[in-house]
Formats: sequence, C-alpha cells, structure tokens
Amino acid sequence: MAVTWRLDELGARLDVPFVGDPGTQVSRVADLASAEPDCLTFLGDPSYRKALAETRAGVVILTEDDAAACPAAALISPNPYLCFSKAARLLYPPVPVQGGIHASAVVHPSARVDPSAWVGPLSVIEAGVQIGPRVFVGPGCILGEEVRVGADSRLVARVTLCWRTQVGERALIHPGAVIGRSGFGFAKDGKRWVRIPQVGRAVLGDDVEIGANTTVDRGAIEDTVIGDGVKLDNQIQIGHNVQIGENSAMAANSGISGSTRIGRNCTIAGAVGMAGHLGIGDDVHFTGMAMVTRSFPEPGSYSSGIPAMPSGEWRRNVARFRHLDELSRRLKQLEARVATLSAAQRQEEP
Amino acid sequence: MAVTWRLDELGARLDVPFVGDPGTQVSRVADLASAEPDCLTFLGDPSYRKALAETRAGVVILTEDDAAACPAAALISPNPYLCFSKAARLLYPPVPVQGGIHASAVVHPSARVDPSAWVGPLSVIEAGVQIGPRVFVGPGCILGEEVRVGADSRLVARVTLCWRTQVGERALIHPGAVIGRSGFGFAKDGKRWVRIPQVGRAVLGDDVEIGANTTVDRGAIEDTVIGDGVKLDNQIQIGHNVQIGENSAMAANSGISGSTRIGRNCTIAGAVGMAGHLGIGDDVHFTGMAMVTRSFPEPGSYSSGIPAMPSGEWRRNVARFRHLDELSRRLKQLEARVATLSAAQRQEEP
Amino acid sequence: MAVTWRLDELGARLDVPFVGDPGTQVSRVADLASAEPDCLTFLGDPSYRKALAETRAGVVILTEDDAAACPAAALISPNPYLCFSKAARLLYPPVPVQGGIHASAVVHPSARVDPSAWVGPLSVIEAGVQIGPRVFVGPGCILGEEVRVGADSRLVARVTLCWRTQVGERALIHPGAVIGRSGFGFAKDGKRWVRIPQVGRAVLGDDVEIGANTTVDRGAIEDTVIGDGVKLDNQIQIGHNVQIGENSAMAANSGISGSTRIGRNCTIAGAVGMAGHLGIGDDVHFTGMAMVTRSFPEPGSYSSGIPAMPSGEWRRNVARFRHLDELSRRLKQLEARVATLSAAQRQEEP
Repeated sequence: MAVTWRLDELGARLDVPFVGDPGTQVSRVADLASAEPDCLTFLGDPSYRKALAETRAGVVILTEDDAAACPAAALISPNPYLCFSKAARLLYPPVPVQGGIHASAVVHPSARVDPSAWVGPLSVIEAGVQIGPRVFVGPGCILGEEVRVGADSRLVARVTLCWRTQVGERALIHPGAVIGRSGFGFAKDGKRWVRIPQVGRAVLGDDVEIGANTTVDRGAIEDTVIGDGVKLDNQIQIGHNVQIGENSAMAANSGISGSTRIGRNCTIAGAVGMAGHLGIGDDVHFTGMAMVTRSFPEPGSYSSGIPAMPSGEWRRNVARFRHLDELSRRLKQLEARVATLSAAQRQEEP
Repeated sequence: MAVTWRLDELGARLDVPFVGDPGTQVSRVADLASAEPDCLTFLGDPSYRKALAETRAGVVILTEDDAAACPAAALISPNPYLCFSKAARLLYPPVPVQGGIHASAVVHPSARVDPSAWVGPLSVIEAGVQIGPRVFVGPGCILGEEVRVGADSRLVARVTLCWRTQVGERALIHPGAVIGRSGFGFAKDGKRWVRIPQVGRAVLGDDVEIGANTTVDRGAIEDTVIGDGVKLDNQIQIGHNVQIGENSAMAANSGISGSTRIGRNCTIAGAVGMAGHLGIGDDVHFTGMAMVTRSFPEPGSYSSGIPAMPSGEWRRNVARFRHLDELSRRLKQLEARVATLSAAQRQEEP
Repeated sequence: MAVTWRLDELGARLDVPFVGDPGTQVSRVADLASAEPDCLTFLGDPSYRKALAETRAGVVILTEDDAAACPAAALISPNPYLCFSKAARLLYPPVPVQGGIHASAVVHPSARVDPSAWVGPLSVIEAGVQIGPRVFVGPGCILGEEVRVGADSRLVARVTLCWRTQVGERALIHPGAVIGRSGFGFAKDGKRWVRIPQVGRAVLGDDVEIGANTTVDRGAIEDTVIGDGVKLDNQIQIGHNVQIGENSAMAANSGISGSTRIGRNCTIAGAVGMAGHLGIGDDVHFTGMAMVTRSFPEPGSYSSGIPAMPSGEWRRNVARFRHLDELSRRLKQLEARVATLSAAQRQEEP
C-alpha cells in the first residue's frame, strides 16, 4: 500500500530542507523506537529525545534545534508533526477510484452516477440520487432518495445516507454512520407522543469527516448543517437543526441536542453533552465529559465533571455534596456569629 | 412529497376554527421567519410574536389570543404545537406501502411475509419470520430466525432484528438499530468470563420508535420489554431484562443497565446513565447526563452533574471537592468551638 | 433450540453431586418464580430463598446449605451461578457451523475461506481475507482487505472488519460492530485539520467479545490491541493505539481515548470515559460514569460523578459548587479568626 520516496524528493515536495544522503529511501512510517532503516519517523515532543539518539530510522522529521542530535538523515521543519502528517500522506497515497458499478449493487434507473465514481458491492442507490466524479461508495452503503454526494468523497463501507442528505466534496464517512435520519420531534397529545414530520435536510460541507456509527439527524423544518472542514469522531449524535461551524472538531461519544449552534474552530472532547437551543461561539473548547447546559458565546476553555478518585473517598465527598447548600448556609451563619463575638470582645477590651 | 391543502379542509380535518380566506392553499411547512405564501407555520412560543407580525406565511396556527395580530390566514388552537404536528402529518402523509419482495432480498422459504408488506433490496429474512400487513422493510435489513413484525411497522433501512425479536404494530425503527442482541451476561470462572446463554426475547409494543444505532438487548431468561408508545432516540443502550413502561421517552446517548424497570410517562433526557436492578416509578423525569444509582419510585424531576464553567475555575473547585468531607468536618469543629467561645463570653458578661 | 438433559447426566458433565431422581429431565432454563417442571434454575442470592420454597422447577442448582430446603431435585455447587452458566450452555449448545458460502455473498477470488466456515447471505469478503475453520460469518458482514478471522469465531450479522483487522479464535462479534476503522488522527495546519494516515491494525486476541455497534479504531502506527478474553459490551468506543489486557471487561457506552493502556482483569462499568495516554494497572475497577483523567496504576476501585437527586436540591447544591473554592477560603479565614478570638479570650481569663 505504501510507496517509496527518496529524501531529496520528500524535501522538495514538502518544501523543507533536508540533512543527509539525498538518496536515502523510506517506504513506511514508524515510531522512533521501532523504526527500521526503511522508515520515516518524527520527533514532535522533546521528551522523546532519548529515543531519537537510539533510533534506527532512515529519516527523521524534526526541528532545526534537534537536527544536530539526529543519527539519521533528517527533514527540518518548525512543525514536525504537521510535516510528518503531510509526508505520511505521500507514503500512503489514497488508491485512485476506478469508475464503475459492482454487479451486485442495486441502483435505481433515475440515479445519476458519474462514470468516474465507484459503487461497491451490495450497495443500494435509490431514486434521484446524484453521485459526483471520483466518489467512492464502498460495500453495503445505502443512499436514499434524492441524496447528493460531491466529488472525491469517500463512503468507506456500510454508510447510510437518508432521504435528501447532501454531502460536499472530499468528505470521508466511516462505516455505520447514519446521516439524515428523521429527527426526534414529537408533540404531546395527552400522554401519547405525536411524531412531527421532519422535512429539513442534513447538509454536510466540503472536507467533512464523519466517524463510525455516528448519527446526524436531518432538520425538522430548516436544515441541519455541518460546516466545511468539520471532523466528527465515532459514535457522536447530532440532533436536528444543529449547526456546526467550519473546522470544528468533536471527539467520540459526544452528543449535541437539537437546534444548538456551534461556532468555528471549536474543539469538543469526548463524551461531552450539550443541551438544545444553545449558542456556542467560535474558538470555544470543551474538555472531556463536559456538561453544557448554557450558551458559551465567548472563546475559551470550559470544563465540568468530577475526576475519578478511590471509591471510598468519593462516597464520603458525594455524601457531603448532597448537603453543600446547607454547609454553605452554616458557614455564613458562623461568620456572622464570629463577627458578633469579635465585636463583643473588642468592646470588652480596656 | 408534500400535498396541498385548503385552509377550510385543514380546519375541518383538524377540527379547529379558521380565520381568513377558506381557499388559502398551503403545501409545505416552514418557520415563521422563512415562510412563503405556500407555507403553513405556527406560533408556539410568545417570544416569536415579532416574527408573527412580519411573517409571509399563508396560514399560521396560533391561539385565539394571538389571532388578531396575525397578518395571514389562521387556524385557532389552544395548543398550536400539537395542532401543527397533526397538520404537518396531513401535508406530508406517509407513502403507502407497495406489497412485494425485491428480487435481491434473501427470504427463507419458511418465512411468512404478508402480501401487502414490502421487503426491500438486499434484506435478509431468516427462517420462521412473520411479517404483518403493510409492514415496510427497507433496504439492507436483517430479520433473524422467528422474528415477528406487526402490521404497519416501518424498518427504515439497515435494521437488525435478532433471533425471536417481537415488534408490535405501527413501530418505526431507524437505520443501524440492533434489537435482540444476546445480552452481556457472564459468570466468572477464576479470571475468565463464561458467557451465559441469553434465552429471553426483546419484545417491543405498539407505536414504539427506536432511533438510529440504538441497541436493545434480549432478556437473559425472561424478556426485555419496551412498552406501547415508548420513543427511544439515537444511540441508546437498553440492557437485558430492562422494562420500560408505556409512553416513556428517552433522548440520545442514554444507557439503561440490566434488569432496571422504568415506569410509564417518564422522560429521560440525553446521556443519562442508569445502574442495573433499579426501580423507576411512573412520571419520573431525569435531566441530561443524570447519573442514576438508586431507585426513584416517586414522581418528580431528578438531576445530577456539574454544569460546565471556565476550566480554571473548574480546576480550583474540583480540587476542593476532593476535600469536601474534610471541609465539612472542619466546619463542624469550628461550630463547636464558636459555641464554646460564645458560652464563655456570655459567662463573662456582667 | 434447547436440548433435554437428565439430572444424573448433568451432574456427571458438570462434575457436581446431585440430589433427587436421577432421571429428572430438564430442557430449558427459568427463574425460580416462573420455572415449570421441565426447567433448570438456580439459587444464587440468599434473598431468593422464599422463591425456592415455592418453586415448581424440575432441578435447582444451589449450595449444600440450601439443599435441605429445596422442594425439587438439586445440583449441589459452591458457586451456583457459575455452575448454572455452564449448565445453560449444555441446554443451549451452539449450533454447529455448516461450511459453505451463500450464493448472494460477494467473495473476492483471492480470499481464503476454510471449507468448514460459513459465509452468510449478502456478505462481502474482500481481497486477501483469510477465514479459519468453523468460522461463522453471518448475513451482511463486510470483511475488508487482508482481514484474518481465527477458528471458531462468530460474526453474528452485519459486522464490519476494516482493512487488515486481525481476529483471534472463538471471538464473538455482534451486529453493527466496526473494527479497524482508520482512527481520529489529525495535525493542525492553520485552522484546517490534516488527516494522518492510520497504518496500524486492530488486533483482537482469542475469546474476545465485541458488542453491538461498538467501534474499535486501528492504530496510527503501531496496533490497537484487545487482549485474550476481553469482553466489550455495546456502543463502546476504543480509540487508536489503545491496549486492553487479558480478561478485562467493559460495560456499554464507555469510551477510551487514544493510546491509553488498560491492564488485565479490570472491570469498567457503563458510560465511563477515559482520557488518552493514560496507564491503568491490573485489577482496576471503575464504577459507572467514572471520569478518568489520570493514570491509575494501582489495583482498586475508583469512582466519580454526582448521583441524581431531586432537581431543586441539585440546583442549590450546584450553585454552591461553583463557589466551593471561595467557600473553602472563607472557612480557612474563619478558622484563623476563631483561633485569634480563642487566644484573646484565654488571655482575658483570670
């Protein structure tokens, strides 16, 4: 799967200087510690300098400051991790898509599949679907009526795009994702729930990534919108009418309730939960398991939750938490009482 | 997909009075703000009254009190949201199911599929399955041995019903749902886990809805039971032997551990977790991310969790939480000490 | 599905003594309360002794101490629950796998499927896949290029094994699981995210169980490793490069961030979240919804979270939590002040 690159070619392509034999060849990536001479690796974190001294790698990407200590050929970059990510993409280039439709796929006659796109085995393409150039539809995918997928997008396998879902260009959608499900909208009629037709769409911008088993509901009336460059990890839930701004990223197991709007360049760590109808600004960052119950319009880092501790200790502290309001009142009373005592004592003083 | 209705017909069908030209026609729904003359909309929340004044909608559903301020034709209802939900169902009626079995489906000869039911492309129907009248089995569904699905139920796409799962009438099950998986039951044999055969079923009542990628395990010995009218959102986990009472609703990402029983008309918000073997009464409501570690037999609203705050502030408060028990003891000691001081001072007073 | 056993045969096979008519026959399992004369049941918890007295079961598994009170035939074991789990496996033996490939499956010519293995309807087996003896590949599974599955493993239905995933022997993988997805690895390039090729594998040991809709990402460079005997429940997320030691078990909805290493014989309850790059030792136990933000190398039980309470009470306590740091400072000041007062009072005393 990987291809071989020469050091000088890598330097030229990545537009960074190199040190060492220009003909040094690498054909795969590895950690500093386990690298062999055919490997490219990088030093991102200074704490790995010891591993650098001992590495058997063919080429290491590192900063100018670390170059002198490198026992191998090197590529010099002020941001070794980013440079490594680009180099790794050269070593492991995407396989070009071969246009065609597998004989076992079920494609509605009204669907328009670009000749350069691939529709894999046992996929179902329903009426009115439009699939753009070089799109890869892996095995077992289901594209509902009127779905559109933009050029160069990749549905890895077993992706479900429901009715009218729109996917931009260069999207990457992983197995088990369900996009455009009719969202969770009900009105109460006595004790019974009456489902409200959900007629908005799920609209994904360009360069969006959707993780395995992640779900994005379509809008109730207006659309659910996932902005350009948004990256969603696995098992995330996005409720109806949510909007996520450009380049925001969200780690696994998080859930966003309906109609919440998230700005640009936000990072949302794992297992974060957000209530509905909130407004989250640009450049807002939530740490893992944060419980978001109000809007956060201002940039910044926000957190919540109690980190784990030994269970006995936790039990005692939690018991006190149940009486925190009372404890706080008692402290206030005591403060008043001590103030009175102090005043009395001062009076008595000669 | 939507159909056109006249104002007078809508009023008659919904059994509510109308105001304005009886021949006003609407053929889709919209928000107050974005509505066009062919749109039906509603005013549910008084905070949208400004949008009402400016709406271009053809018909607005609202209360009698708001009717005078409405620039468009109106339907008058004491509960505009519920009335809207019913009207929307008239504008977007379900597509009638066309009976038949797609040529690519794999149906076991012993399965009994009602002639009015549809089995979609690339679905698998195993031995002994019974599918009732007008059931819609979308593309890519798998119905294991002895599964039964009641009349008018709809499996949208890629639904997996495992061995012996029972689904009532008018159910709606979304893509990726897995119902009737053999639950997580083990006995420990030294350090190893021995799986215990799970021979109960998953039994879903009538009018049940199951969200995308939601999982419902079958019972260990007795059945897992999801009552009539229960609505489960996406990515929910229901453990073996759980019972959920009629018309209870649960938002996304929640998980219920084995053998817990939940009453009727409960609402469980997103990302709630419940321990096993609990008893939750009727009309119990949990707010988002609640951590349910004991039974709640009484009606009421219950909550837990620490809402997000700026990370620095959170870090300082959490550090104190770790010593909350100690802090509480110190307060008690101080109270005793102040009481002694007060007593001494009173004695000294002339 | 169940088979019939005689009491004496069961005793011999389980290597435990029995009491009662050796010819007593049982052919299914039940609870003490609902058992009929053809049922096997057990008394695991002394609180069910009343049900024992009234049971109509044919055979009860119980300890020697409870044998005298048993109205039915009995199998005597010091660990009735474990003995029951083994007996239940005899009553419900796994159906032997019939070798073959369903006509509707799509199998690449370069795949090697053992003749004793079964590949179910509408499954996709890609290039270079190796499937061992007696493996069961249920309907709708997708095995990507170079996947290997060891002997006697069972993919129930609709399992996705991505590129190069390795599964050991006797694994059990439930519907909707996605193993070996390309993990969530990006470098930042200005405001944009650059995906880093993920070239490690997901490697599952022997006797591993993976629940429905659970996701296990493949390694970035090295492998993600799930040790022998590990049991994962439904809807769990395992990030890239995670390692889980032998016989550890994890309940539903938990998520482990990238590069965290978990030891052997750990139990992780439901909805636990772990940050990345942590080290968790052997015999570590986390209770439900624990928030794991640091390493726990030592054996023990660890917890976090605030259990649910009435919403009004919770609101008041949470408001105080926001000022816990301040409250703690005020207590300290008050302690100092009271110390001063006490000293002053002592001085005044005659």
